[in-house]
Amino acid sequence: MIQPNIPDTTLPRIVVVGGGFAGISIVKALRKAPVQVILLDRNNYHLFQPLLYQVATAGLEPESIAFPLRGMFHKYKNVHFRMAEVRAVDTVNNILETGIGDIHYDYLVIASGSNTNFFGNKQVAENAIGMKSLIEAIQIRNYVLKQFEESLLLEKDEEISPKLNFVMVGGGPTGVELAGAFAELKKYILPRDYPELPIHLMNVFLIEAGPRLLNGFSDKLSNRTKEDLEKLGVKVMTNVAVKDYDGSTLTLSDGNTIKTQSLIWSAGVKGFPLKGLPGDSLLPNGRIVVDEFQLIQGLKNVYAIGDIAQLTNDPRFPKGYPMVAQVALQQGKNLGNNLLNFFRNKPMKPFKYKDLGSMATIGRNRAVTEFSGIQLTGYLAWLAWMVVHLLKLIGFRNKLVVFINWMYRYFTYDRGTRIIIKRGAANIVKLGKTVTQVDPSID
Amino acid sequence: MIQPNIPDTTLPRIVVVGGGFAGISIVKALRKAPVQVILLDRNNYHLFQPLLYQVATAGLEPESIAFPLRGMFHKYKNVHFRMAEVRAVDTVNNILETGIGDIHYDYLVIASGSNTNFFGNKQVAENAIGMKSLIEAIQIRNYVLKQFEESLLLEKDEEISPKLNFVMVGGGPTGVELAGAFAELKKYILPRDYPELPIHLMNVFLIEAGPRLLNGFSDKLSNRTKEDLEKLGVKVMTNVAVKDYDGSTLTLSDGNTIKTQSLIWSAGVKGFPLKGLPGDSLLPNGRIVVDEFQLIQGLKNVYAIGDIAQLTNDPRFPKGYPMVAQVALQQGKNLGNNLLNFFRNKPMKPFKYKDLGSMATIGRNRAVTEFSGIQLTGYLAWLAWMVVHLLKLIGFRNKLVVFINWMYRYFTYDRGTRIIIKRGAANIVKLGKTVTQVDPSID
Repeated sequence: MIQPNIPDTTLPRIVVVGGGFAGISIVKALRKAPVQVILLDRNNYHLFQPLLYQVATAGLEPESIAFPLRGMFHKYKNVHFRMAEVRAVDTVNNILETGIGDIHYDYLVIASGSNTNFFGNKQVAENAIGMKSLIEAIQIRNYVLKQFEESLLLEKDEEISPKLNFVMVGGGPTGVELAGAFAELKKYILPRDYPELPIHLMNVFLIEAGPRLLNGFSDKLSNRTKEDLEKLGVKVMTNVAVKDYDGSTLTLSDGNTIKTQSLIWSAGVKGFPLKGLPGDSLLPNGRIVVDEFQLIQGLKNVYAIGDIAQLTNDPRFPKGYPMVAQVALQQGKNLGNNLLNFFRNKPMKPFKYKDLGSMATIGRNRAVTEFSGIQLTGYLAWLAWMVVHLLKLIGFRNKLVVFINWMYRYFTYDRGTRIIIKRGAANIVKLGKTVTQVDPSID
Repeated sequence: MIQPNIPDTTLPRIVVVGGGFAGISIVKALRKAPVQVILLDRNNYHLFQPLLYQVATAGLEPESIAFPLRGMFHKYKNVHFRMAEVRAVDTVNNILETGIGDIHYDYLVIASGSNTNFFGNKQVAENAIGMKSLIEAIQIRNYVLKQFEESLLLEKDEEISPKLNFVMVGGGPTGVELAGAFAELKKYILPRDYPELPIHLMNVFLIEAGPRLLNGFSDKLSNRTKEDLEKLGVKVMTNVAVKDYDGSTLTLSDGNTIKTQSLIWSAGVKGFPLKGLPGDSLLPNGRIVVDEFQLIQGLKNVYAIGDIAQLTNDPRFPKGYPMVAQVALQQGKNLGNNLLNFFRNKPMKPFKYKDLGSMATIGRNRAVTEFSGIQLTGYLAWLAWMVVHLLKLIGFRNKLVVFINWMYRYFTYDRGTRIIIKRGAANIVKLGKTVTQVDPSID
C-alpha cells in the first residue's frame, strides 16, 4: 500500500472527497473538532457553479468564480488538502484508493457532486457540450466566439445559420440563465463587434421536455420567465425533447429539426459514485442512498452529502432533495455538527432541509425569485439575485472583481472577457509542443 | 484564389499583420484616413505583454491583460478585423496568404512581433518554457502550482528539491520581474498554503550571460536590482550562460549544474518573418531590414514595424532599436501618420525614437526606473511603475480589475488567482472528449 505523504495522527481521520459546496461546508463545521480532516479534490479550487454560465458567455473571468481551497483553509490547522483523483473505496479495510496513493480513513465523507446527464443518448453525449466544470465553461466561451469569427468568413445564409443557431437544452435555472445571456450577446455584443454579420441569422433556442420552465418555481414565475425570455428574443420550446443530435442537425421529439453546431446541454445531472460501495446503496441515477444522518446504507463510517446523496426523509421531496447548493451546504454543516456531537458523546440530529427559496436571472433587470412565499420579478428580483450571489461568492477579491465586471457590463452593455484562449499558433508550434512535453496534462 | 469575405472597397487597402503594440498603434493613426484597414491577428485580443509575468505567477487573471481587438476598434468604421494565421506574402501580386484565404493588399504592414529565442539550442528549446503568449503564461501558472502540489507527495529532500528549484534565464526586465515574483511566492504564499513543505528547499535562480542585470539601465540601477533581488532571496548569477538542459539537470557554462524541473526562458527574442519576403531584407535574428520610413528594403508597398523591424538610423542603437513596447508604439504611429501624409500629398517624416525611459519592478515596494536622467529606486519607483502600467493598460474594466488585484495583494500578501485550470478528470473523460470533438483546437 502506497501511503501518500499525509501527516500521521492519533486523532480520528475524516477524509472528505470533493471541495464543492457540501465539502467545504463540512470542513468548516469540523474546524475546531478533535479530528484530522483530509480534503481531496481533483482541482485545487472551489468552484462557484451558479456563476459558471457567466464565464461561458464572456461575462466573468474563470478566476473570479474559483477560489483556491488552500487559501480557504490555511488557517485550519487540522485540515490538510491534497489534489487527487479518487478511484475506489475499500470499505472493509477503510482505505480510499486515489491517484496519489492509498489513504486510510476512520470516517469517509463522499461529496463528489454530480456531472452532466445525457440520459444514455450516446450520439448526443458525443456531440453536445456540457457545462459543469470551469474548463467546459472556458471551452464554450472559446467555441462560441470562434463560431462568430468563422461566420464572418461565409457568404451563404444556409452556411452561416447553423453557426449562429445556439440551442440550450433544459429549462432549469442554468438553461434559462444561459439562454438569457446568449440573447444579450446577440442584442448588445454582436451588432457592435460584428457589424458585417447578418444578425437576424442568430437564434437562441431553449428546449424543455416538460410543460414549463423552472419546474421548481411557481406557475406564475415560470410563465413570467418564458415571457421575459421571449421578449429578449429567445425561442422557448416546451413539451419537446431532444431525440438525436449528430453535430449538425438536432432532431426533436415532435419531428422538427434545427440546424445547429452548438448544443449546450443542461438538461440534467447525475452522480458518479465511487467504486467499491455496496451495490444496494447505488441508484440508477448515480446517487447514493443515505439515511437521515447521511450514512450510506449498509456502512458504519461512510457518509454521502450534497448532489451525490439521495435522502428521502422529507415528504415534499419523495425522490430525494434537489441537487442544488443549498441542500449541499446544509447537509455538510449538519453532518459536520453531528460528527462533532458524536465525538462529544452528544446525540446526532437528523437532517432537516430549510428551503431558503429559489432564484434565477434572465438578463439585464430581469430575474425571478421566491423567498418563503414572497415572489419577486423584474428589477427587484434582479437586484436580489445579484446581492445574494455576491454575498455567497467566496473570497473578498472575487467579490470585488465580479462586482466590477457587473457594474461595467451594466453601464457599458459590454462583456469584457470575450477572448479566445488557445494554444500557440503556426510559427511557434514547436513551443507549444515544448510546454506540452514538460507537462502533457496542462491546458 | 480564395478571397475571404472582406468588404469590397474602392479605397486603398492597408493590411496590418499583428495586433500587438505596433499594430494597434498604426490602426489608431489610420482611424480617419481615406483607406480600408484590415487588421489580422492569430488571436482575437491585444495582449499587454509587460504584465504577462503576473499571470504566470498567479497575480492576475489572463483576461485582465488581454483586450478584445474588436472591442478596441468597433467605432472605427474603416477598420475590419479578422482572426487569421498569416502564412506567406506574394509581393509581386500584392497578395497575403492566410489561414482564412488569400487577401489582396495595396499596402502591407508587418507587425508580427517576436517570439522566444533559444539561440539554436534544441535540447534547451525542447525542455525549457518560454513566456511570450497568454497560453504560455497560464501553462506556467498551472505547472508551477502543480510542482508545489506534487512536492507535497514526496518525502526525500533530493526528490523535492528539483521540483522547487525554479530557474529564470535572462537578466532583462522579464527575467528580473519573474524572479522577484517567484521569490515572493516563496516568501508569502508557500508558508501559508503549504505549511508541510520544507520551504528551504525552494530556490529561485536568475541566470544572466552578461556581466550585469538590466543591461539597458545604468550601472547603479543594475547593481541595486541585484541587491534587491538578493534581499528577496533570489540567487543571482551573472557571467554564466546555459550550456544544456535535459529537463532535469541544467548545465552551466562554468561547469556547475542545478537540478531543476522548471527552466523559464526569457533570455532573448527573435523575429519570425513571413515567407516570400526578399532574402536580402532578412537578418539572421529573424528581423527585417527597413529604411527610416519602415519600408522593407527592395519593396515599394510593404512595411515592417515593431520588434520584427530592424532600423539602424540612430547611432545610439547601431544594432537596431530595442524590441520593446515604446519603439513599437512610436513606429506604428509614425508610419500611420506617414501614410496619411502620403495620401494627402504631404512629405513623410523619418522615424525618430524618443526614449521615454525604462522601468522594471522587483517586488513589493521595490522597482527601478529611469526617466530622462532621473533615476528612482525602491518605493517611489514601484509606485511609478504601477501608475504607468495602469495608465498604459487598455480598457477601463481591465484597469479596474488589475488595480483591485494589486490592492488586494498589497494589503493581504495573497495572490488570488492561484488556480490550476485543467481538462476534466478521470470519471468524466468522455465529456472532455466530447468537447474536444466539437472543436479540437480549443484549450
